[in-house]
Amino acid sequence: MEAYLDNSATTQAFPSVCDTVVKVMSRDYGNPSALHRKGMEAEAYVRAARETIAASLRVSEKEIYFTSGGTESNNMAIIGAAMANRRAGSHIITTTIEHASVSNTMKFLEEQGFTVTYVPVDQYGVIDLEALEKAITRETILVSVMYVNNEIGSVQPVEAISQVIRRKKPDILFHADAIQAYGKFLIRPRRQGIDMLSASGHKIHGPKGVGFLYVKDRVKIRPVIFGGGQQQGLRSGTENVPGAAGMAEAAREIYKDHEMKIDYMYRMKERFTEGILELEGTKINGPLLREGAPHIVSVSFAGIRSEVLLHALEEQGIYVSAGSACSSHHPMPSATLKGIGVQKEYLESTLRFSFGAFTKMEEIEYTLETLKRLLPVLRRFRRG
Amino acid sequence: MEAYLDNSATTQAFPSVCDTVVKVMSRDYGNPSALHRKGMEAEAYVRAARETIAASLRVSEKEIYFTSGGTESNNMAIIGAAMANRRAGSHIITTTIEHASVSNTMKFLEEQGFTVTYVPVDQYGVIDLEALEKAITRETILVSVMYVNNEIGSVQPVEAISQVIRRKKPDILFHADAIQAYGKFLIRPRRQGIDMLSASGHKIHGPKGVGFLYVKDRVKIRPVIFGGGQQQGLRSGTENVPGAAGMAEAAREIYKDHEMKIDYMYRMKERFTEGILELEGTKINGPLLREGAPHIVSVSFAGIRSEVLLHALEEQGIYVSAGSACSSHHPMPSATLKGIGVQKEYLESTLRFSFGAFTKMEEIEYTLETLKRLLPVLRRFRRG
Repeated sequence: MEAYLDNSATTQAFPSVCDTVVKVMSRDYGNPSALHRKGMEAEAYVRAARETIAASLRVSEKEIYFTSGGTESNNMAIIGAAMANRRAGSHIITTTIEHASVSNTMKFLEEQGFTVTYVPVDQYGVIDLEALEKAITRETILVSVMYVNNEIGSVQPVEAISQVIRRKKPDILFHADAIQAYGKFLIRPRRQGIDMLSASGHKIHGPKGVGFLYVKDRVKIRPVIFGGGQQQGLRSGTENVPGAAGMAEAAREIYKDHEMKIDYMYRMKERFTEGILELEGTKINGPLLREGAPHIVSVSFAGIRSEVLLHALEEQGIYVSAGSACSSHHPMPSATLKGIGVQKEYLESTLRFSFGAFTKMEEIEYTLETLKRLLPVLRRFRRG
Repeated sequence: MEAYLDNSATTQAFPSVCDTVVKVMSRDYGNPSALHRKGMEAEAYVRAARETIAASLRVSEKEIYFTSGGTESNNMAIIGAAMANRRAGSHIITTTIEHASVSNTMKFLEEQGFTVTYVPVDQYGVIDLEALEKAITRETILVSVMYVNNEIGSVQPVEAISQVIRRKKPDILFHADAIQAYGKFLIRPRRQGIDMLSASGHKIHGPKGVGFLYVKDRVKIRPVIFGGGQQQGLRSGTENVPGAAGMAEAAREIYKDHEMKIDYMYRMKERFTEGILELEGTKINGPLLREGAPHIVSVSFAGIRSEVLLHALEEQGIYVSAGSACSSHHPMPSATLKGIGVQKEYLESTLRFSFGAFTKMEEIEYTLETLKRLLPVLRRFRRG
């Protein structure tokens, strides 16, 4: 049996996404900037994709910009907003548990003369709203907080964050990195007070190499990539038509029978969590059950190095991550696990199990059985 | 009959490219950063793609970085080199006929305090080497010249440019925008003295949304996108595995029987040029025949607005561009046509016909016949 439980790293594309991508690549391959029919047809795909994504967020299609993925979306939002609003101030706020595409972009901005405050989170990975409020100064121009943490699945109180900002300094821009949230939650940027929102195609069974950034009407950001002026000048370059169409198809698919899908994920999470806690020497990190995202469970295994267990599971056809896969070629103690106060001995004994639209309860049972069998062996081996 | 003669705007994907993309999206969908087998498999695709591209240029695979396309490659090379070498100087040289992804990136750098010299070209669109030599100062850090012009097909004397640079100030970085050249010419960056070279997938029957940048070993550039540190830290973000694999497949396909393919394109170009010049009131812009690229012919039609002719041809199933399609939603007098001194009356009467690997001689004949029939009608209509 196989159990792919690394869906927060990346997902298998929906069959309908593959069909869409191939159709656009092979038959409707025009350049949306071309003035003839093949150009119009290609442009219609991009427009329809934008409409589908916009509808899923209840925003206007003019507020959706396609990018090359979540990393670029985060860069575009953060660098774009910082550079466009430099005259208004040079202070930015984020949290201690952001993805590298946010935290390393912040480091870049610090080199460029911006000041960044990293607000702490509690043991469940939830932002300290008081600390956020205190951090806001007259110089603050941007707050960037991830909607769902990619390692432990904590969900930020997005509306409360927005309210703190609006109360204290309404002109601050609020960016939400929703790369792990889009497709899992019903997101309503307008109601939730989000000015910019990032998402990625390949986290929702769409294509790799495509993502989007929602930028609220009238919010001004500076492009990070310059050229032919496509996408209202904000993101130049020939549009990735198959990518955009494929991502929209994935969005349509993932938001179909959404409540049912998410409920099934939560039931898998509940069963998995329950099973894990029956095993000796295990500990769940971050939010419990329905307080967290439906698809991520972070587990520490006392006395077992994560890489050892990861490869032992792999031998049994179970695929998981040690921390976040997104940059695991540069292994470092996880900022998220440190941020929520995980003890040092557990930092390198933690695995992330993440579910997707293709994950079945049988895979959860199989993984639990396998862990039950493996853990004593690995611990004995270690002692021996 | 259909004649898609807009291959410089974008191309139809090779069937083998579609197969590769779907296989990677649906079956081998891992994240190259993941430590398990599915991660390794995905990483192997990226490595193999890098090797294929590197082999096509006779460079090392460590010198190839995948991007989201030609526009990002040009931005990364130019902004990356400028920012990394700012201490050495702040002067950059380019030409008057670059693509918007170069010229608008230069404008951005001018806003950032860099000085840019725009070297002129002759009537065939070839750089004035004396002017280039004179433009080089002690402050010059970068020269960026497009290998093949996208509107008229002029080919720059890349080696001569490199020699001028090496003679005058050897530490200047030389970037070649090869987006219209890769797949049409055998490019040898080492022998030709190129430090950075940009290319795009969808111009060679590969996927949209992917490109590469060659960066010579030991050349230091600063990233433009920050994150998880993928691709040696130079281009963060989960690798577009299907895109990279698809582009490599396109490169393999396009460089197979390459001489034969290019010779066929030149024969189509010769036949087309000959046929065009037999028509009344036509003028070829830029280099003639084998002095230019094999796939681009720019034609001015006296007394006929390009959009009118473009749509009349479209009615007959013939797809072409007015100038460059890459930014045709923002119609402006073409910098290239102005740069080579095309008279004002012809600026808005010019069409680009561009061939690809699927173009057949029959399409050329059909286009010539159609033009022969249409031109008198359109001119009469205009007078009437």
